[in-house]
Amino acid sequence: MTERSTLRRLPARGSRELEVIYAILDAAFVAHVGFAVDGQPYVIPTLFGRAGDKLYLHGSAASRMMRTLQSGAPVCVTVTLVDGLVLARSAFHHSMNYRSAVLFGTARAIDDPALKTEALQVISEHLIAGRWDEVRAPNSLELKATTVLELTIEEASAKTRVGPPMDDEQDYALPVWAGVLPLSLKAGAPQPDVRLAEGIAAPDYIKHYRG
Amino acid sequence: MTERSTLRRLPARGSRELEVIYAILDAAFVAHVGFAVDGQPYVIPTLFGRAGDKLYLHGSAASRMMRTLQSGAPVCVTVTLVDGLVLARSAFHHSMNYRSAVLFGTARAIDDPALKTEALQVISEHLIAGRWDEVRAPNSLELKATTVLELTIEEASAKTRVGPPMDDEQDYALPVWAGVLPLSLKAGAPQPDVRLAEGIAAPDYIKHYRG
Repeated sequence: MTERSTLRRLPARGSRELEVIYAILDAAFVAHVGFAVDGQPYVIPTLFGRAGDKLYLHGSAASRMMRTLQSGAPVCVTVTLVDGLVLARSAFHHSMNYRSAVLFGTARAIDDPALKTEALQVISEHLIAGRWDEVRAPNSLELKATTVLELTIEEASAKTRVGPPMDDEQDYALPVWAGVLPLSLKAGAPQPDVRLAEGIAAPDYIKHYRG
Repeated sequence: MTERSTLRRLPARGSRELEVIYAILDAAFVAHVGFAVDGQPYVIPTLFGRAGDKLYLHGSAASRMMRTLQSGAPVCVTVTLVDGLVLARSAFHHSMNYRSAVLFGTARAIDDPALKTEALQVISEHLIAGRWDEVRAPNSLELKATTVLELTIEEASAKTRVGPPMDDEQDYALPVWAGVLPLSLKAGAPQPDVRLAEGIAAPDYIKHYRG
């Protein structure tokens, strides 16, 4: 039993906590992937997709992360959504509203081109739903240049903070502004490529991106 | 020589790359901290501050991260800012505009209460400049309950992507919208605490938060 086992196994299908974990994963598109080589930890940001208890990652076949992960090394994948600054009346009670999920598992490379393409579609639709069907699909050279990994989530936990600051009773009398400053990732106006042909408007899935 | 050494030593003071790394750190307030225990990697999101080549982290003395880091274990700290989705005409050339910094080093605990308070001020001012002077400073009990770590950045690298999609020449003719969808963390309207005394307006450093 390592200390890792103080974390829960992947919660049962249909449980409230599993739903929370999946909702966090589905609301984010950047994950921070942790792995160790000779005891040295590395943390690399990457896009990802999810289908059930599988996470899909892709990258260059030459990358250290891809090579290490496909060897079956233990992986930690963390996803964090920042929801706001929690401004208390004392320095000590300052905090952040956030949702984060920490996943543990091991990955394997997907070799079959059809399955690889399916996994890339999962990643693409996770990032921006609706896009995949409009763009040119990967050809066989592009598939060869891309390593696609399937990570089975074996253990997972979620941590969230919501709500106002919680101050010490005597501090409520202090003449200091307190409350929450909400923060969220917002999309700006789409910037068309300079070589975009005339008459092609940004589709709704871009104009109304979830942010 | 481990593979880690393929990364650069901390670039020289005043170099362009060092400036880029520090600018990324200063524009972000959440870091993902990676460490390994018996070969098992962990990645934990946390607030941080920076002064020169030192990073400051704080947390509960009971946390596994704090205990592991203060033992001098190798640490990787990664900071990522998402700037936009890069929407190409082919699935393969989709990308993300972003800025990320990956730091390696080791940490030590700060024990002296005055130095500890200074480090907490660095973290607080990094998160929201101007706040520290308005709020009640940590008392000695609060300082005792908080572990504060100073991490010396020994190696670091930055990675960024900017600009439009780069498509294969033959794909520019495809009738697909292409370009960049800018993304950034934005602040919403401050939400006053229900117990806020009357007549206390949100200060400018909250109303005009960099987001």
